[in-house]
Amino acid sequence: MGVGARKVAAKAVSPHREYEPYLEAKWGLKNHWYPAAFTHEVPDKLVKGVMIAGHEIALRRGKGGKVYALADRCAHRGVRISKKSMCLTDEHLTCWYHGFTYGLEDGVLKTILASPDDAQIGKTRIRTYPTHEKNGMIWVFVGDEDFKPVPPLTSDLPMRVPKEYDPNPVAFILDDNTFVRGIHRTGDSNWRLAVENGFDPGHVLIHYDNVFIAATDRKLALGWQPKSPEAVEVIDLPEGPKGIMNRYDPHLNLYNYINENAVTGMKVYGKQEYYVRTSMWVPGVLLVEHWPVTNWAQYEFYVPIDDTHHEYWEIIVGHCNSEEDRKEAEFKYTNFFEPLGLLEFNNRDLFAREAMQDFYEKMDGWNQEQLCKLDAVVVGWRKLAARFNRGIQAPPPGADRKD
Amino acid sequence: MGVGARKVAAKAVSPHREYEPYLEAKWGLKNHWYPAAFTHEVPDKLVKGVMIAGHEIALRRGKGGKVYALADRCAHRGVRISKKSMCLTDEHLTCWYHGFTYGLEDGVLKTILASPDDAQIGKTRIRTYPTHEKNGMIWVFVGDEDFKPVPPLTSDLPMRVPKEYDPNPVAFILDDNTFVRGIHRTGDSNWRLAVENGFDPGHVLIHYDNVFIAATDRKLALGWQPKSPEAVEVIDLPEGPKGIMNRYDPHLNLYNYINENAVTGMKVYGKQEYYVRTSMWVPGVLLVEHWPVTNWAQYEFYVPIDDTHHEYWEIIVGHCNSEEDRKEAEFKYTNFFEPLGLLEFNNRDLFAREAMQDFYEKMDGWNQEQLCKLDAVVVGWRKLAARFNRGIQAPPPGADRKD
Amino acid sequence: MGVGARKVAAKAVSPHREYEPYLEAKWGLKNHWYPAAFTHEVPDKLVKGVMIAGHEIALRRGKGGKVYALADRCAHRGVRISKKSMCLTDEHLTCWYHGFTYGLEDGVLKTILASPDDAQIGKTRIRTYPTHEKNGMIWVFVGDEDFKPVPPLTSDLPMRVPKEYDPNPVAFILDDNTFVRGIHRTGDSNWRLAVENGFDPGHVLIHYDNVFIAATDRKLALGWQPKSPEAVEVIDLPEGPKGIMNRYDPHLNLYNYINENAVTGMKVYGKQEYYVRTSMWVPGVLLVEHWPVTNWAQYEFYVPIDDTHHEYWEIIVGHCNSEEDRKEAEFKYTNFFEPLGLLEFNNRDLFAREAMQDFYEKMDGWNQEQLCKLDAVVVGWRKLAARFNRGIQAPPPGADRKD
Repeated sequence: MGVGARKVAAKAVSPHREYEPYLEAKWGLKNHWYPAAFTHEVPDKLVKGVMIAGHEIALRRGKGGKVYALADRCAHRGVRISKKSMCLTDEHLTCWYHGFTYGLEDGVLKTILASPDDAQIGKTRIRTYPTHEKNGMIWVFVGDEDFKPVPPLTSDLPMRVPKEYDPNPVAFILDDNTFVRGIHRTGDSNWRLAVENGFDPGHVLIHYDNVFIAATDRKLALGWQPKSPEAVEVIDLPEGPKGIMNRYDPHLNLYNYINENAVTGMKVYGKQEYYVRTSMWVPGVLLVEHWPVTNWAQYEFYVPIDDTHHEYWEIIVGHCNSEEDRKEAEFKYTNFFEPLGLLEFNNRDLFAREAMQDFYEKMDGWNQEQLCKLDAVVVGWRKLAARFNRGIQAPPPGADRKD
Repeated sequence: MGVGARKVAAKAVSPHREYEPYLEAKWGLKNHWYPAAFTHEVPDKLVKGVMIAGHEIALRRGKGGKVYALADRCAHRGVRISKKSMCLTDEHLTCWYHGFTYGLEDGVLKTILASPDDAQIGKTRIRTYPTHEKNGMIWVFVGDEDFKPVPPLTSDLPMRVPKEYDPNPVAFILDDNTFVRGIHRTGDSNWRLAVENGFDPGHVLIHYDNVFIAATDRKLALGWQPKSPEAVEVIDLPEGPKGIMNRYDPHLNLYNYINENAVTGMKVYGKQEYYVRTSMWVPGVLLVEHWPVTNWAQYEFYVPIDDTHHEYWEIIVGHCNSEEDRKEAEFKYTNFFEPLGLLEFNNRDLFAREAMQDFYEKMDGWNQEQLCKLDAVVVGWRKLAARFNRGIQAPPPGADRKD
Repeated sequence: MGVGARKVAAKAVSPHREYEPYLEAKWGLKNHWYPAAFTHEVPDKLVKGVMIAGHEIALRRGKGGKVYALADRCAHRGVRISKKSMCLTDEHLTCWYHGFTYGLEDGVLKTILASPDDAQIGKTRIRTYPTHEKNGMIWVFVGDEDFKPVPPLTSDLPMRVPKEYDPNPVAFILDDNTFVRGIHRTGDSNWRLAVENGFDPGHVLIHYDNVFIAATDRKLALGWQPKSPEAVEVIDLPEGPKGIMNRYDPHLNLYNYINENAVTGMKVYGKQEYYVRTSMWVPGVLLVEHWPVTNWAQYEFYVPIDDTHHEYWEIIVGHCNSEEDRKEAEFKYTNFFEPLGLLEFNNRDLFAREAMQDFYEKMDGWNQEQLCKLDAVVVGWRKLAARFNRGIQAPPPGADRKD
């Protein structure tokens, strides 16, 4: 809200022609894999409810510990099945209210506890979602039930960094012998604002006075200014991930590292030169190579919840080939990466995204924003997402009748 | 909110033909008696404000302690008169803001404290409502001011159980020599979801693991399945109450008591057989005979407040013919009926109603629900309410401009 | 909300013809001076954000301590610049997110920290607002940027009381040798309801039992009833303030002081006769002469924030010609005027305004209210504001898409 000085001039030609579908993706991109929960958040005998891109989903383990995902509304009278866990067998999901009992595999109504001869049995069903669990994380494929074939999870993750891109590549989140740990929390902004903040080469200013940066004496620029279109590389792997990368690689020399500003006298204080590289992947996954320290990587997922909230996932990934490695990784994760990196440092990013929300939600921000030179990669991302998404998620029933 | 798997198929013939008006009764049924407050909640010199079916009502005692009910908005500048009690005489209701003073009997403006010769005096008025007080409860007749004649309160209560229905009938809430005690609290759901939960023979599953049930070793079924249409009896007393009764009477044998389920292996643990009977009465009053223990009764009122809230009244009623009886009743009420029954046990019902609210409010639940065999009595209630109500309450002014 | 007994009769002739524009001024009157902050609330190196009549404004001190006011949305991606203070020089306002840096004087983009050669520099700008600071208060002229010439602040304050009006005039808020102290807080009502409560001669009833009144044994009437149209004087100074005054002056004898009411037996208890005079000035400034005690004055400002909130300013003003005077004033302010006057006494006014909000916001109060004899001055104010405002503030962008 608020009267500013912003001109609301009619524009003859929309500047958005090149990424129009992206502007409609308020509720997210559909038919993609999204992280839904950590393994430890879905213990046996618990029905865990989540919302992804407006889809209400119940997660439960069945036979052999396999995770299943089903629609989280009972067909009978519409309560969320996850509101109270009722786990009677390892093949069924039972609603706590009237005992409607669905098969975990197919979602078909198998019995009603107190009406075992009911005509609905075998006919009514709730939908199911594909799942994948690895290295402590559970992913769900969210979108149209009839979308076939379901693409591999790897197509919705950052590429495994090849030797051509880095002689010393960081670990890949799905690999064995990998340390994977992190946190997730809800951000009060649309998922797109989260993505755009995540790897925008101008946003580092918000970190210039961070404890992390000061304590490690890192030389973090006021911003990175692309010198030419090559600074931003689009990566389109056949059948594989689609991403956009800031080629910060020093030997390429594609960015100006701005460390001071003449007009204001502003300059950075850190002395330790430091190399990091960022890339963003459809449907909204950030890879920061060599962060928080060299040889490690930080993955971030900005998972749409509804039109004004996203689930913010921050995952630290590292090579881990021995028990010795694991112990050291846990020490570093617990005492450095999580408190100073995922929390202290990235809290600033959460703050910045949420600060944009009002403007984009209520003040026609998508048309009123005035992008600058630093935003080349943001525009690049928008085009990428507009081109490679597998569909735009429509609002769920009742979305216009919010609490 | 949420994308489920629910089919939103167009239906050639509406399944609701038989209870259409009920679906419009979001704000309640009008021209009925509703409980408004306990006697002890309206002491002398207090103006008590309540909302029933969108009607803002001020309660106050006048001459001889009689309770009056008037519209709770001052005609002058629209403040709620009950916001601050100003009780100057026992014939008037004075607004605390500018001293507009109305007659308790007729609602006519009798004076303005600082403008005693004002032209409005004797002309302006606020409306009044009929009241009735008995056994510690205050009822108000809510609806059109010109609805005449006002029917007796007994027509909006459960029938007094006759000997033909029970050789050992429970006490009637309005009788002398009756113990009447209870509580009320606000539920975050529409009043109809509260009613429908209240006596639905499938909802008992939510109570199967309740402390009350486990502690008393009650054999409470997973659900009661009606065997034939006779299981549900419609009671239409001329000039009297209209209700629908689950004929759980054991000698009639009209219900299957489902105590286990083959598919899931689920079964109940209690050993003590127990007889209870439930009936629901227009405009939404539950009678549970022989509950929480034999010879006692529990009345429940689901009073519409607005379209998304109801006031949930739970009243324990018992025969009480001596001071000895009264003392024992108080002991049982205080140490058993209220903590373990009205709270511990019925909290589950409140939970279940509120769990349905989103679906019915935002996801077209009335058309999307998939009722089963257990719901015969729910449908029976809907038809009854559609047929015997004295009018559907329209939304109040400003209802569409909610906070 | 609520069904009352209010007739919603169509009215052949609108009673509002004489003050129609006032009814549209939900967001305030524009092109007027409003208090924005106390001097002590804008220390060096702080960017202070306020909202006035829907305008989001950032306040900051520049060279020589001068206060500047600029639009509080960065042109780049729309964050509020005041969300985090970044003060690099005394000529610039820098946005904390991407370092967009605007000139304090003209609002023009002077540099972007990490994009110093950006094409937007020198072209993009945010708007500025005129400011004035005196006696510990900061005023901002809020409205159209092209409104010229900006009228003097004195035209939007109460007149300096001339000797003809009072042989012993109270101090003027902008004068030197004046003690000026007070508080401000947010009220949950539209600004117009705040104004109308402030000097309505019938509203004193809400104060009849106040600690302030009882402790000082003041004879405060139940209400003041105007005897003739002369009781209410419109003051229209050429190029100067426009106000409406309750001529309570005892020698004029234009009001009936109503100290008891025959119908209800209500009467006031205080014995100390006391003279006070109230006047209201466009755009909504109250002057109470000889309050809280003789020779002192209380100014009140009801500053529109948005359509349902106002900032309530209460300022005590007194003559102060020596250090001795100042010490005594501080003693009285701290131990009497603020706790017993601005808080204890005026809390009642805040309560009353907020009690009107629902009715005017949701129940068509402007058409449903039934004004009485006491309201002559309220109607007088409405006409004055309708006639002398410099424009009606339109809702800001996004105002209809509230949280």
